[in-house]
Amino acid sequence: MRILVNISYQGSQFLGFQIQQQGRTVQQQFEKILKRMHRRHVRIHPSSRTDRGVHAYEQYFHFDTELNIAPQQWKYAMNSALPDDIYVKEVQQVDEEFHCRYDCVGKRYRYKVYQAEHRNPFESGLKTFIKDELDLGKMNKAARHFIGTHDFTGFCSQKTEVESKERTLYQSEIVKTAEGFDYIVTGSGFLYNMVRVLVAFLIEVGKGKRQPDEVPTLLKEKNRNNVPFTAPAEGLYLEKIYLAPEELINDFGNDIKIHYKKSLQND
Amino acid sequence: MRILVNISYQGSQFLGFQIQQQGRTVQQQFEKILKRMHRRHVRIHPSSRTDRGVHAYEQYFHFDTELNIAPQQWKYAMNSALPDDIYVKEVQQVDEEFHCRYDCVGKRYRYKVYQAEHRNPFESGLKTFIKDELDLGKMNKAARHFIGTHDFTGFCSQKTEVESKERTLYQSEIVKTAEGFDYIVTGSGFLYNMVRVLVAFLIEVGKGKRQPDEVPTLLKEKNRNNVPFTAPAEGLYLEKIYLAPEELINDFGNDIKIHYKKSLQND
Repeated sequence: MRILVNISYQGSQFLGFQIQQQGRTVQQQFEKILKRMHRRHVRIHPSSRTDRGVHAYEQYFHFDTELNIAPQQWKYAMNSALPDDIYVKEVQQVDEEFHCRYDCVGKRYRYKVYQAEHRNPFESGLKTFIKDELDLGKMNKAARHFIGTHDFTGFCSQKTEVESKERTLYQSEIVKTAEGFDYIVTGSGFLYNMVRVLVAFLIEVGKGKRQPDEVPTLLKEKNRNNVPFTAPAEGLYLEKIYLAPEELINDFGNDIKIHYKKSLQND
Repeated sequence: MRILVNISYQGSQFLGFQIQQQGRTVQQQFEKILKRMHRRHVRIHPSSRTDRGVHAYEQYFHFDTELNIAPQQWKYAMNSALPDDIYVKEVQQVDEEFHCRYDCVGKRYRYKVYQAEHRNPFESGLKTFIKDELDLGKMNKAARHFIGTHDFTGFCSQKTEVESKERTLYQSEIVKTAEGFDYIVTGSGFLYNMVRVLVAFLIEVGKGKRQPDEVPTLLKEKNRNNVPFTAPAEGLYLEKIYLAPEELINDFGNDIKIHYKKSLQND
């Protein structure tokens, strides 16, 4: 049977989600526990592979098992064995056709920035520090230009290897917080480093070095050299995974373009 | 000339303050920078040697230098070279008779606990998690019994090697916070693991397993076996260092007993 697991983790002490030859990763923590329980290797399949230092308020993965364990017991068994910086929020049994990656139709990220006279060691790894004053109104104006369906070639890592770099953003906004601002972005999917490149660009806008109305041109030019910075991983939080189109429609309306991946799987 | 440095650090990624054969320590971070600047080894002398995982909102150290650098420049040079989890708050030149350890007449610690249905990975390393409901009133009553001059043999690590285990506590109280409680304790000095043993005992009181009026007997018995638990390091913050008796008198009045260490140095 297929088991779906909803987790959160603090990413600062992980080399990322995906297992590596060496070093601490989220996948490794779970596969170690599952191996002990199954006495064989059990692979987990996440909705998203977060990078080194990136956090998750919500992340899903699934795995297949022959063990007859109730969801609450899975949750208890995993939380008892996990380190303090990962927590299993919920476990459920799902249909064997369900796939965490192919059924994911959208994701929301939150990027957290604190602004202060000097850096705060207690925010280390958890929020990004910016000393400058920023024009949040201008940043928000720029942010909204990204909403819609665009080719994001100019706003992702040049190492990105995917067929299409077209993605749809349903939400892209700057929200003032007590200590700085958050950038909240919801989309059909995200290219490698895309959120961190968007944030770095928005910060340049906030400093007055770029203008909001440059966005349409930059999107058209599709040249990453025009948008050279990448914000650090520590401020980035995966906040929500949309596993059903209804959820997206519920949040953003009937008219949105939904990118289905399920069909790709069956190709 | 002698330079006094006021720092703060997040302890979760350090093996403690004191330099070790291997591994990341606060002392190591500073001595590496000072070695580069002096082209020789320069030793630093802290007011307190915090353990692995313990944080500091305020900590002092001093070192001697022949370099003619202004305090603001020292601060800038060190902060530029330090990792994100340490910050230099202030640098000043002091009299060569001043000594961080021997002039320290008191310290304040804060121990942070969050209470919740389940652990929060984003508090990992920063606060201690307790699921139980606790009677904070009883805990506070117990905490106040520790105020005054006592032999704390029963409330420190049995590995503690000092001539006298008599210490004076000026403040010992439980304060309710949004997410749980803080234990705040100010004293002339603290024995090895003392704050963590006090906290563990107070938590037992909060659970109803121990009673506040046991404290006088436990102090008299001087037997650590009667107080077997130690709270984890992650909730512990060094909050203030008293480098002058006037500061202590200012906070706690004229009648307090002050423990001078300066005379020991000159023995």
